[in-house]
Order: sequence, then structure tokens, then C-alpha cells
Amino acid sequence: MKLSNRIMSMQESPVRKLVPIATKVKKNGKKVYHLNIGQPDIETPKVFMEAINNYDTTVIKYSFSQGEPTLINAIRDYFARDGIIFDEDEILITNGGSEALTFTTIAICDPGDEILVPEPFYTNYSGFTGGVNVSIKPITTKAEEGFHLPSKEDIVRLITPKTKAILFSNPGNPTGTILRIDELEMLAEIAKEHNLYIISDEVYRGFAYDGLKGISMGSIKGVDDRVIIIESVSKRYSACGARIGSLASKNKELIKNVLKLCQARLCVATLEQIGAAELYKLTDEYTQSVKDEYQSRRDIVYKTLSEIPGVVCEKPTGAFYVVVKLPVKNAEDFIIWMLEEFEEDGETIMMAPAEGFYATKGLGIDEVRIAYVLNTTDMKRAMYLLRKGLEIYNKKL
Amino acid sequence: MKLSNRIMSMQESPVRKLVPIATKVKKNGKKVYHLNIGQPDIETPKVFMEAINNYDTTVIKYSFSQGEPTLINAIRDYFARDGIIFDEDEILITNGGSEALTFTTIAICDPGDEILVPEPFYTNYSGFTGGVNVSIKPITTKAEEGFHLPSKEDIVRLITPKTKAILFSNPGNPTGTILRIDELEMLAEIAKEHNLYIISDEVYRGFAYDGLKGISMGSIKGVDDRVIIIESVSKRYSACGARIGSLASKNKELIKNVLKLCQARLCVATLEQIGAAELYKLTDEYTQSVKDEYQSRRDIVYKTLSEIPGVVCEKPTGAFYVVVKLPVKNAEDFIIWMLEEFEEDGETIMMAPAEGFYATKGLGIDEVRIAYVLNTTDMKRAMYLLRKGLEIYNKKL
Repeated sequence: MKLSNRIMSMQESPVRKLVPIATKVKKNGKKVYHLNIGQPDIETPKVFMEAINNYDTTVIKYSFSQGEPTLINAIRDYFARDGIIFDEDEILITNGGSEALTFTTIAICDPGDEILVPEPFYTNYSGFTGGVNVSIKPITTKAEEGFHLPSKEDIVRLITPKTKAILFSNPGNPTGTILRIDELEMLAEIAKEHNLYIISDEVYRGFAYDGLKGISMGSIKGVDDRVIIIESVSKRYSACGARIGSLASKNKELIKNVLKLCQARLCVATLEQIGAAELYKLTDEYTQSVKDEYQSRRDIVYKTLSEIPGVVCEKPTGAFYVVVKLPVKNAEDFIIWMLEEFEEDGETIMMAPAEGFYATKGLGIDEVRIAYVLNTTDMKRAMYLLRKGLEIYNKKL
Repeated sequence: MKLSNRIMSMQESPVRKLVPIATKVKKNGKKVYHLNIGQPDIETPKVFMEAINNYDTTVIKYSFSQGEPTLINAIRDYFARDGIIFDEDEILITNGGSEALTFTTIAICDPGDEILVPEPFYTNYSGFTGGVNVSIKPITTKAEEGFHLPSKEDIVRLITPKTKAILFSNPGNPTGTILRIDELEMLAEIAKEHNLYIISDEVYRGFAYDGLKGISMGSIKGVDDRVIIIESVSKRYSACGARIGSLASKNKELIKNVLKLCQARLCVATLEQIGAAELYKLTDEYTQSVKDEYQSRRDIVYKTLSEIPGVVCEKPTGAFYVVVKLPVKNAEDFIIWMLEEFEEDGETIMMAPAEGFYATKGLGIDEVRIAYVLNTTDMKRAMYLLRKGLEIYNKKL
């Protein structure tokens, strides 16, 4: 039986493809520190389960297609704390940021259309777009430049009549880079001049270190009708398994049309929305404590990396990832070697090969993504193992 | 800002478009019996919330992209009780039956492809297909024939080189019709002869009255590689707001490819899967008691309908809907009149106009869908009001 061309041309998740190797070595008794996935170990705030446990209902009914009013209002308040004011009918609740991105793509692109995305980028962007016949055109950014954006000319050069939007995550997954305000303003300028939407994936907003602040695209003036903000509780509140995301836009016509897609799939899980509303009500005290924890981990990661000869890595300032150029020929080979051959006291680490985060063939081959989602003790140990592994690997060759 | 052609050509939900009128009259104090939506009033079995309340975790982590093993195994057992044997890697958990249908469409159809669907059909099928640029070609069925399928020749005539599948719900929403085994075998034959997939939406399976049995397409021989079964806890276990569905197929290549779409959206809500697993473990005693309740309601609906002159309606045998041809010119006008003008002791009813369930223009204009999702006392009252309303409406004209 033939399957569709669009499904056959989709790649399997590069983050997940080495999982079977890790499973095998763990079965054989090796301890693996997982730096390869963005699953935080931080506790989900207890208010989430409390709200669900206290939810008093005998029938688990459909929620509203646009989302539970209590959650929508909590998200409005979250934005309002930064002076970004959304009406109730400018926010839609979705099955994670994932569904928000898929629905946005369907609503603004027809088959054959293109979206510009700075690379390296969150690989699932390929799934959300490819599954609905839209292509990603990469804007290449470089480890040497801390993955900041190239010049306006370099970006404009990539625009074709098929280009409908610029999509980026800020703070960045996988780079850990926070875009400066002049970069956001440049993107706004390009969008206005070339009539593009701006899809700003802000699921890591708040994870900004060294006194920096992740600026929401919602703060940039003059692009209200073209900005779509993607949100999620997954990372900020350590609730990846809740699958609660949202999209917000002051373009009411866009929201009204995305609502049709929301109506077709009826609603998002009711209980999880009840719990998520409480997460968005958490104060800055919570986010500050989480941020402090991640900053300590970032410091550990960066300290080790800056001491290893041949590593290229600007200090990451946001999210909980970093993409690093390693002194190896092929990072995937090295990751597999670390899993299968290397160990110290029965322990090793697993990283994600960065090649899969690039759309341009040949880029990122000597790079890895490290997610600092383990406590500081484990992170220290993991980074020690990376350093040790690299030494042995490079001596061996 | 321009939106995509595909989103602009999607219709708003016809089931939901009269909601503002109902909201207005309710605000003015009128009681409205809702026969317009498939939101059952039956209690969600307590095991659902119990499992969630007892779920012991500090971090709400990502679940597996294919779904929680405990839920997958519970669904395997559910099918096995009818002698349909699926391997673990032949079932994927989805965000409701809705996502299962969208993913299936993406995986087997490219833009421009077609799927045959008996009409009247569940209107959201248009959303799942239209959003990803696939068209529905209707196989017209008729109230006078109890909405059973036309002849093989009539169906085959609709097949083009673009046709990739036949999709149907059985028991049927909105018709309440259960397909006979000879109808399922005819569809299997057509699928084999014309190399089509069969997408069998079985979310109402079990709701089969008068001693009938809703036969799963999984029981039909010789089409293992082309059958995809869509499942959900929404109706069978009165858990619409849980958003837990699944797709099952013995075509492992298909499942492997749909898994790419599952991986891109990471997973389905973890807690809801834990709860849903307990639902699928419920015994036949539970399903029998629910079925008995719905059969009593069906009897009330059908008794009244068969007593009203000019109504065309074969006795529905499954699900909890019926599509009825009323002795009115325009059913939507009548529904609005019932809401705005009619009342007895401050009460009225709301139904869904059936026109929106047809893809062929001009069909179903004098038909409504009635969902019998209220308890027997309320159903009796609601059907009395329908009869009374029709009498007055037709005298008036």
C-alpha cells in the first residue's frame, strides 16, 4: 500500500534516533547522563496536580474549542505583566506549542509556500511544516557568532514570492541564544517591507541569564497584525506531559480562522487546562528560582566547555541548551562512541547530534546540542565525562 | 494580511453556528433542551479520575510519542475481547479520534487527493481533510433507506485516480445507522479492487441496539494491510474532554510513518492516558448498562418520531443520533423558530440542521440531527416539545 509523498519525505526525529543505542547500553548496566533531550528534572509546581485533584465534576465534558476561559485569562495576565495586552479573543489554547505551530502554518501557508527559519532550529519545525506541504528555508547562523542573525541583506536575499513568514524560537532551542532587540526590530522591518508574518516561539521566555531579559515579539511596535506568539507550559513550568500550549495574535482575523481548526478537533484536554491555569498564576518568585537553578547549570556547562581545547562555543544566555562545535570530525560518531565504548566507573553521557538541527546539508556535522536539564551535581559529572571522553577519543585517532 | 486559501475555504462548524441564538434565548430565561450536540450526560466512570488522582509523580514528563504502554495494552485487550489481535506496535495514541483522522489523512493522501465518505457524515471530517488539502467525495445515502449504502456500482462510479480511501463512521454519526456485514464486505471488496485504504471510525462501537452488534472493520478478512481503525474514549466512556483517541492498523509501515507525525508533536497528555487506560479495562457490564440507557432514549425518540405525520425516519440502531426528514421546507429556519419563537412553560429544544452533514449542495435541507444525550425524562419532554412545535409551525404557515 502506497503512502503519501509528504509522509515519506519526513525524517525521523534526529533527537530520538540514537535512543535504541542508549537503551542497549543501559540494559547492560551502564549509567547514561541524558544531555540529549529537553525534559527538565525540575518539579512541576504542585498547584498543577492540586487543581486537577480538586476539580469537581462527574462528567469530563468537552472544553471550549478556543480553550477554558480561566486558562485564557491566566495567559492574558502573564503577558500583561510585561505590558503586552491581549483581548480574550486573541488567544487560543492548543495541544502544546506543537499544535499551535501546525495550525499557524496551515492558516498562513498553502502547499508549496515557504517559511524562513534561522538554523540550527528545533527539528520538529520540519514536521509541523512538512506534514502540511510547506518548506523551511534556512537562515544560517554560526557557532562563532553565538548564533546571532546575519545581516538584513543576507536574510532578504532568501525571500521569494512563496515566502509567507519568519519563524524562530527566542530564547533559542537548540542554540540557547537570546535575540537582541535590534535583531527583533530588524525582523519586524523585513516583515513589514516584504509582507510576512512573524511566528515567535517564546516557550523558553523567562529563561534568560546574566541579567538579560528575553524580549517578547509582542513588545515590538508596528507589527501587531503580523505577529503570532507561540506559548507553552512545558518548559517554563516543567510540565512537558501536560501538552498545553497556546497561540496569541492581535490579528483577530487570523485567530478567527485558526479557530476553525480548533473547532474541527473540538477542544484540548479539560483537566490539563484547569491545572495549567494555576501555573500561569505563579509569581516571579517561582520563575526566578527556576532561572537561578538553570543559570548555575549553564555556568557549569560553559566553564567546562571553555576549558576544552578546540571547542567553539559563545556563552549561551537563554533556554537550557547550547550548540557546541567539538574538536571531532563527526559528532554523531563521537556520541555513539561515548555511548558504546567510553565509560568511567560505569558512567557515560548522551548528547544530540546537531546536524539534524540544520536544514542546509553539510552543516553542524561537528556540533552537538547539550541540554542542561540535570541537577548541578549530575551536570558537573556529565561535563567531566565529556571532557574525559574527548581526550581519549582524540588520542585514540 | 492574507491568509491561506485552505483556511479561507474551510467552513465554520454547522453544529456550532446556531449557538449564539441559543445563548441569547437562554439568557432571557428560556430553558433549552440540547439535542444538538453529542455531549453525553452519563457520568465518566470514576476509575478515570481515581487513576489520575493516584498517579504518583513529581514531574509531569513527556509520555512516549506512540502513547503510554499501559493504555496501548488496554486498547489491545479491548480489541482482543472481539477476537481482533493487534501487536503493540500497531496502535498509536492520539489527541482524540480527531488527531488520528488528521494524521491518517496526511499519511495516505497528498494535496489534491480524494477520500470517499458516505453522506450525511460527521462534519469535522471536512476539517481534518480540508486543512491538509484533501477533498471528500460524498457517497449519498438516504433517510428513506435508513442511510444504508447504495450499490457497489454507485460507489465504484465515484472512484478516480485521486481516490485514496473510503472513510466512514460505524455506528454512524449523524445517522445512527449500523452497517451490515454485507456492506462492510462490499467496501472491503471495493478497496481491494481499487487499491484503497479503509478508514473505519469506530468511536461509537458498542452503541448497538435491538440485539445488533457493531462489527469492527478489524473482523473483515483479507484487508489487514488497508484497514485503519479510529478509536476514542469520548463517547463510549463519556469522557469527551479527555481527548484520548487512537489509531490501529496491521499495516506496520503505515504505523511507522504516522509515528513520525506523533514524534513531531511529542506526545499526548500523560495524565489523561493514565486515566483512559482504566476506562478500557471496564467490563461488559459497564458498556451493557450504558447501552441499555441509550436504547431507552432511542425508543422514546423513535416512538415520537414515528407518530408525527410527514416525518421520514428509519429506526436508528446505533450511536446516539438520528437524522430525520421533517415536514418543513427548511429545517434550519424551523430550528431557529423553535429557539426564538416557540416555547411551552418557558421551555424549548435545540437540534442540529442536517444540511451541514452533506457535502452535496441541496441535500438535507429539510433534515435535522437529534442527539439523544439527555436522560429519559428530559428526552420525553424534549420530544413532546418537538411534536408540539411542529404542529404549531405548520399550522402557522
